Amino acid sequence: MIFIGERINGSFKDIGQAIKERAKEPVQDWAKKQAERGARYLDVNMGAASRNPEDSVWLLQTVQETVPTPISIDSTNLEVIKSSLKATDGRPVLINSTTAEEKKLEKFVSLAAEYNTSLMGVAMDERGSPPDADRRVENGARIFAAATEGGLSPEQIFLDPILMPLKFMQNQAKSVLESIEQYTMFSDPPPHISVGLSNLGSKASEKKLINRIFLVMAIAKGLDAAICDVMDEDLLNAVATAELILDKEIYSDSYLKVFWSQQTL
Amino acid sequence: MIFIGERINGSFKDIGQAIKERAKEPVQDWAKKQAERGARYLDVNMGAASRNPEDSVWLLQTVQETVPTPISIDSTNLEVIKSSLKATDGRPVLINSTTAEEKKLEKFVSLAAEYNTSLMGVAMDERGSPPDADRRVENGARIFAAATEGGLSPEQIFLDPILMPLKFMQNQAKSVLESIEQYTMFSDPPPHISVGLSNLGSKASEKKLINRIFLVMAIAKGLDAAICDVMDEDLLNAVATAELILDKEIYSDSYLKVFWSQQTL
Repeated sequence: MIFIGERINGSFKDIGQAIKERAKEPVQDWAKKQAERGARYLDVNMGAASRNPEDSVWLLQTVQETVPTPISIDSTNLEVIKSSLKATDGRPVLINSTTAEEKKLEKFVSLAAEYNTSLMGVAMDERGSPPDADRRVENGARIFAAATEGGLSPEQIFLDPILMPLKFMQNQAKSVLESIEQYTMFSDPPPHISVGLSNLGSKASEKKLINRIFLVMAIAKGLDAAICDVMDEDLLNAVATAELILDKEIYSDSYLKVFWSQQTL
Repeated sequence: MIFIGERINGSFKDIGQAIKERAKEPVQDWAKKQAERGARYLDVNMGAASRNPEDSVWLLQTVQETVPTPISIDSTNLEVIKSSLKATDGRPVLINSTTAEEKKLEKFVSLAAEYNTSLMGVAMDERGSPPDADRRVENGARIFAAATEGGLSPEQIFLDPILMPLKFMQNQAKSVLESIEQYTMFSDPPPHISVGLSNLGSKASEKKLINRIFLVMAIAKGLDAAICDVMDEDLLNAVATAELILDKEIYSDSYLKVFWSQQTL
């Protein structure tokens, strides 16, 4: 499972303030904590805190000087992504994210190919968010085809079927599960499949339980990545158990201990 | 989700002793407790405590006089099943179970048709337990075809792909998940698909976590029934959440409360 740590995001109050004040400590704290929890990427997202590419470079460099973890550059703004890419230090990078919109897709694929990075594609198009599984599959297929034609390998492609809050759009989670299964058939080996997990439980009283159970169901369908709260121990224990059941880790009575010992930086 | 309460089984010490001593109380206690937890069937199994059909009739009648819950008559012994069927009081019954072995299958299907009961078929054959998903699917298909030809509706057919202990046969859980998905394609509507859940975590240190995570994964694949420990609150909360995610229950912040209020007798 590829955990992408969600916490360095300007939408969280502490990080938003840190960006505005150029205060390194909160950013470094979250970089360390998430890396120690085994995050394979740290998502770096300014949220609404700033649209200034210089701030994004500062945020990225603050993370880079703290831990060696690969970075997920999370922005819909091409200028922010370009500036961030120039500021990376050679470690693996995930550009997060393009959509299936034709003009955007072309530019993002070129950029990923130029910098030899991975690319996340979310299954939105000119019409907005996908209303059903069919549209999710159609948009995922467009992204996968464009990325492949642009020279990216399946290993470099992450597809995100877009998870909506269960509380407000209850019928969408089911179609996300259906589209994950379809995405696994795009190629052999398949592309990575990822969701922004915390969005599902947004505003729900039982958000942690809902996110955890969904993640396990999605893993059963073929999901292998998630932007999520890596500080949630129950979530990680559930993932470790799902991977054991899928025979991806060798059984031992202390498999959770083994899992946690592998999750350190 | 069709919960089949596992606890009235002579393999448990208290029930084994109750059968030998014809002591009603432990049996009645477990019948009530499981029925209150929303078990849709109570599995009634003598285990190794007795092979005497008279004891099975006593066990069945003790359950019947306590709660109105449907009964799963759990035996591989045709005489035990016949005697039990004669002793039922008209409530729905599940015969548990036939295998795909030709001679056995024919007799069990005839019996289910004669008494208009449901029938559980476990995916074993003349060669023993299935080593892989292919054999599970092949045996499931044989059972499904024979039951359908014998006059049972998909709603009356339960298929069990056979769950093995993860600790000792780790690669089997994955092929059970694969075969669940195949079983859902046998008909529309599909037959019921069930597992003996507690077998998975047998002798494992984290048995409850393993059983719970597997059940959620299996539900994502199409499982809709399980013989399990209905006293395990975390297990039932996980199932309630999975059903919410699959849009089978209407979202409310208090969906767990709603679920539990529906689980009472």
